[in-house]
Amino acid sequence: MSAAPVRPASWLSQPHHDGSGRYVSNLNPRLGDEVDVLVRVPLECEVTHVHVRTSPDGEQQFTRAKLVKATETDAWWRATLTCHNPVTKYRFLLAGGPTKYAWLNGTGVHLRDVPDASDFRLVAHDAPPPAWAQGSVVYQIFPDRFARSKAADTRVLPEWAVAADWDDPVVTSEPAVSRQIFGGDLDGITEHLDHLESLGVDVVYMTPFFPARSNHRYDASSFEAIDPLLGGDAALRRLTKAAHARGMKVMGDFTTNHTGDAHEWFLAATGPDGRQRPERDYYIWEKGTYVAWLGVPSLPKLNHLNAALRQRIFEEPSGVVRKWLGRSGGLDGWRVDVANMTGRWRETDVNHDVARQMRTSMGRRFPDALLVGEHFHDYTVDMPGDGWHGVMNYAGFCKPTWTWLRKETKDPRFLGAAIPVPLLDAGAVVETMRDFTSRIAWQSLVHSFNLIGSHDVPRIRTLVGPLGVEPAAALLLTFPSMPMLTYGDEIGMEGTFGEDGRRPMPWDESTWDTRTLEVYRGLIAARRGSTALRQGGLRWVHAEGDAIVFLRETLDEVALVHVARAAHAPVTIDARHLAGIETGRAAYGPVVEIVDGAVTLEASHPGARIWTWKPTDGGPRHRRRRGN
Amino acid sequence: MSAAPVRPASWLSQPHHDGSGRYVSNLNPRLGDEVDVLVRVPLECEVTHVHVRTSPDGEQQFTRAKLVKATETDAWWRATLTCHNPVTKYRFLLAGGPTKYAWLNGTGVHLRDVPDASDFRLVAHDAPPPAWAQGSVVYQIFPDRFARSKAADTRVLPEWAVAADWDDPVVTSEPAVSRQIFGGDLDGITEHLDHLESLGVDVVYMTPFFPARSNHRYDASSFEAIDPLLGGDAALRRLTKAAHARGMKVMGDFTTNHTGDAHEWFLAATGPDGRQRPERDYYIWEKGTYVAWLGVPSLPKLNHLNAALRQRIFEEPSGVVRKWLGRSGGLDGWRVDVANMTGRWRETDVNHDVARQMRTSMGRRFPDALLVGEHFHDYTVDMPGDGWHGVMNYAGFCKPTWTWLRKETKDPRFLGAAIPVPLLDAGAVVETMRDFTSRIAWQSLVHSFNLIGSHDVPRIRTLVGPLGVEPAAALLLTFPSMPMLTYGDEIGMEGTFGEDGRRPMPWDESTWDTRTLEVYRGLIAARRGSTALRQGGLRWVHAEGDAIVFLRETLDEVALVHVARAAHAPVTIDARHLAGIETGRAAYGPVVEIVDGAVTLEASHPGARIWTWKPTDGGPRHRRRRGN
Repeated sequence: MSAAPVRPASWLSQPHHDGSGRYVSNLNPRLGDEVDVLVRVPLECEVTHVHVRTSPDGEQQFTRAKLVKATETDAWWRATLTCHNPVTKYRFLLAGGPTKYAWLNGTGVHLRDVPDASDFRLVAHDAPPPAWAQGSVVYQIFPDRFARSKAADTRVLPEWAVAADWDDPVVTSEPAVSRQIFGGDLDGITEHLDHLESLGVDVVYMTPFFPARSNHRYDASSFEAIDPLLGGDAALRRLTKAAHARGMKVMGDFTTNHTGDAHEWFLAATGPDGRQRPERDYYIWEKGTYVAWLGVPSLPKLNHLNAALRQRIFEEPSGVVRKWLGRSGGLDGWRVDVANMTGRWRETDVNHDVARQMRTSMGRRFPDALLVGEHFHDYTVDMPGDGWHGVMNYAGFCKPTWTWLRKETKDPRFLGAAIPVPLLDAGAVVETMRDFTSRIAWQSLVHSFNLIGSHDVPRIRTLVGPLGVEPAAALLLTFPSMPMLTYGDEIGMEGTFGEDGRRPMPWDESTWDTRTLEVYRGLIAARRGSTALRQGGLRWVHAEGDAIVFLRETLDEVALVHVARAAHAPVTIDARHLAGIETGRAAYGPVVEIVDGAVTLEASHPGARIWTWKPTDGGPRHRRRRGN
Repeated sequence: MSAAPVRPASWLSQPHHDGSGRYVSNLNPRLGDEVDVLVRVPLECEVTHVHVRTSPDGEQQFTRAKLVKATETDAWWRATLTCHNPVTKYRFLLAGGPTKYAWLNGTGVHLRDVPDASDFRLVAHDAPPPAWAQGSVVYQIFPDRFARSKAADTRVLPEWAVAADWDDPVVTSEPAVSRQIFGGDLDGITEHLDHLESLGVDVVYMTPFFPARSNHRYDASSFEAIDPLLGGDAALRRLTKAAHARGMKVMGDFTTNHTGDAHEWFLAATGPDGRQRPERDYYIWEKGTYVAWLGVPSLPKLNHLNAALRQRIFEEPSGVVRKWLGRSGGLDGWRVDVANMTGRWRETDVNHDVARQMRTSMGRRFPDALLVGEHFHDYTVDMPGDGWHGVMNYAGFCKPTWTWLRKETKDPRFLGAAIPVPLLDAGAVVETMRDFTSRIAWQSLVHSFNLIGSHDVPRIRTLVGPLGVEPAAALLLTFPSMPMLTYGDEIGMEGTFGEDGRRPMPWDESTWDTRTLEVYRGLIAARRGSTALRQGGLRWVHAEGDAIVFLRETLDEVALVHVARAAHAPVTIDARHLAGIETGRAAYGPVVEIVDGAVTLEASHPGARIWTWKPTDGGPRHRRRRGN
């Protein structure tokens, strides 16, 4: 079997556009607004005409682009599009030159007709995503395992719990796997915000904190109060207040797909008068028994066809979604558990409705709240832009990154996959990344959590080995997204699968891998110090075998990122395409050598470098427009 | 600019599956049914494990396939899937061999992870598509231009009409372009059913026959009666009765997107008491004026947010959709005009709802009625399987075919495109075809109208020249689909754009291009004589430059199709992959030579051949299952 990947000889010789502010005049237009889009076309393409194809109300329309500027290397064309529909898909038709006929969409240049799936997108919904989110670095905490405050010593554990000391190994077999309680709590997090601040983290995201009958708490028994084992409501207020005082945001984790079987709603639904209770219809019943998430009896699946349930969760000020946001609880947003399955059961599929309602009801009262859905698989059709702001980007980032970096000696399965994660070259991996990211709006991409691990999957260090962590973390922290690391990754914590990785965070710093901590601190600092890394577009330069090279670009800064998974032969780039590079500086890693107009990137071991400079190629600025 | 297409060295050395009955045990399963899927894997791939990935309720699931048979060339694997949701997407994961890790989906083999868009699909909706439709050949008639009965001589034309004699040239400039009436009528069609029968046509599809103020009648003034200029209701009953007597079906053309501005509803809506009339809300109003299709004032756009309108059109037995089907009017289905824009306006998009309602309301009373939507562009996301049975396949067939065959001396624009249709090689063209057809269910593909022309676009003969018609018609009549030709294509009618091609059909046979007629008759006869061409799967063999070769396969017959746009060097195929080919016969065109185990296909001029045989490779039959 063979199927050669589509890879041009040199990406920098290709026309380029992406959905970032470098190329799009307004990332948050409203319905009816006009938006300018720019496309950069290398002069060597000899393109003579550029048109932009849109399809308002489902009918094809062409808008002629104007040549607005020519630099030493590129012609810049501009067209003005109208946001006639909430989503305006567009791609460029390039005429002239040797190829005569070419389309440019989110997967690059195509010399034949293509479907609309990878078109670029302008998204004009009522409320833009919160400004604080773009570019932020997220730190995931599993509350039972991060840090224990003194108060934990005096708490009496419930009957189901199996008490563990902080130094105990995690038990990964049933039944203790979900019952072992180490006693981490919210005040423990508050006490260690120094660590997060010194790491450079912007957002603390916690897995569930509602009372439950497990250590992961995805089986909530109530949404009315914070688990007393974690310190209760007051502890959440203390944590969010302290985090906000440091300029950090805090996100919670809500399970729209199911509750626990000890949930007060489920107890009402199954009690002696259950059939008469409105809560009965909050759940899905088949032949007298309830439907459970993947058949796990403790997780009864919620019925989103029931209007009363949705009213109670989403619309009521005291409902779970709104109650804990803003001043009352202090949260800045929600991550949604099992978002990909929510509202889906047999012939029912109200998944998009649920996402849209959650976004809308949150946004009405808390326009600065962020909503990110968990999605292990192909999220692209589930994220048209009006529901979740973003997703946990497993399919388009985590798995491709693993696929490039995993140790061959390991046999990691990706979330139930039938065969192990393969080891593939950079070209294939980057194609998979583009395939996914081209199918969503830029704003959805940059509000998604890229990740290389989580509480549900193996630890990155275990997967890729000590030397693989730097390239993995470098990809994580330089891509357009809200990169998410999981607690302890930064000190080299290990774990061969999800539960095994949920080890208590050791606070004896002598046990930390300080080299790994330096890598994370250095990469996060580089990101914080660079508008290009936080807000820039994404332009691929090279992806073959052991090396990945790309640019992040704003009008005022360019960051060149070079990631190597192993020693590799030099990659040479014509510096004419990187005007100003000789004035740059190393934001991370070794310096870039420029000799005789050629940038040569080589690696003698796994690693990464980031080089930033002010571009001098004189590309056009956006015109000022109404609404920009 | 360059972007090498993905093309394997030899397609016959690749694993293959398609959605046809050769590989799928039940094309019309119901929710909950189990369906067997087979995949054929050439032994040379050395695949050791096959898994099928589905995503019930949005969560990934793997089903292990079993090796059920090995032939001299192929291993056949089988897995049983459950139709848990109305649409079950699936793709194959192939492990082992030199590549170790490969996905097989509707665009072929991929050595990296891919999104779900091109997954194969099982579609389990309540009612299957009508059995008569599969494989049928459709003949499009523009009623004013096909044939004139004697009764036409005595009809008095309305004031807006410009009378024309049958031999007059069509006027292609305003205002006569849409007002010129040649007087063709329904009895004229009835009188010429002999011609259609001798051609081999199965379905007569007529553009609109409701009264209007134009020759195209897309501006209906009523849906209550057939235009008296065409002979009225009785003429439709005569036509459908006569067609049915010959075993032919008849389809009408209904405009869900708009009416004419002389329509009784629009007159009510805009009359003195318009604001009080329910019909007011049948249309879309902005700032006191109505919204019209692409701004054409005579075509006010219907408002499908209005429940009363939808009730009136779709649900009422006397409403337009049901009234003309079955015994009362005699139609066997509807083609829907501007289906791609229906229900779409600014922030409103109820397009899928409308398609679903039309399908459901038709199907409840007339389960044998077919519903096909006009869609000029990317129909793939608009056809999930529960709305239109199929579409007019412009994007996935018509334009690619033009792109392969058009004369370079011509400057044809495709439906408002900004630059002319390009001329591309077979490889690029077939990739575009696969890109589109892989994104819909097999049942949607085979119930779509493939076409190489229509009343809306240039005539194929004008586009490709006399010698290009045979390869164009051969592709049309051998692909999985309901091939549609437009009246007069079979006798070589010309036209440089839509209106120019709407010339009256000349009934003086001495003016006909009899060679072209032979081509159409021969190809249609080949199709009628071959279950493989009517019902078989589609397996690509070769697509480069001037030649396209593919197989249509059922369990009991294989058809090899070879289409050449020009003389080309021999294409050699290892006959081991075509077991039984030596026993075959020419169903169309020249014989196939098999020498020393090699099939050599060459061409000295544009043309086509079809070779059919009974396969002797011993691939497995499906097991009998409940519901099959």
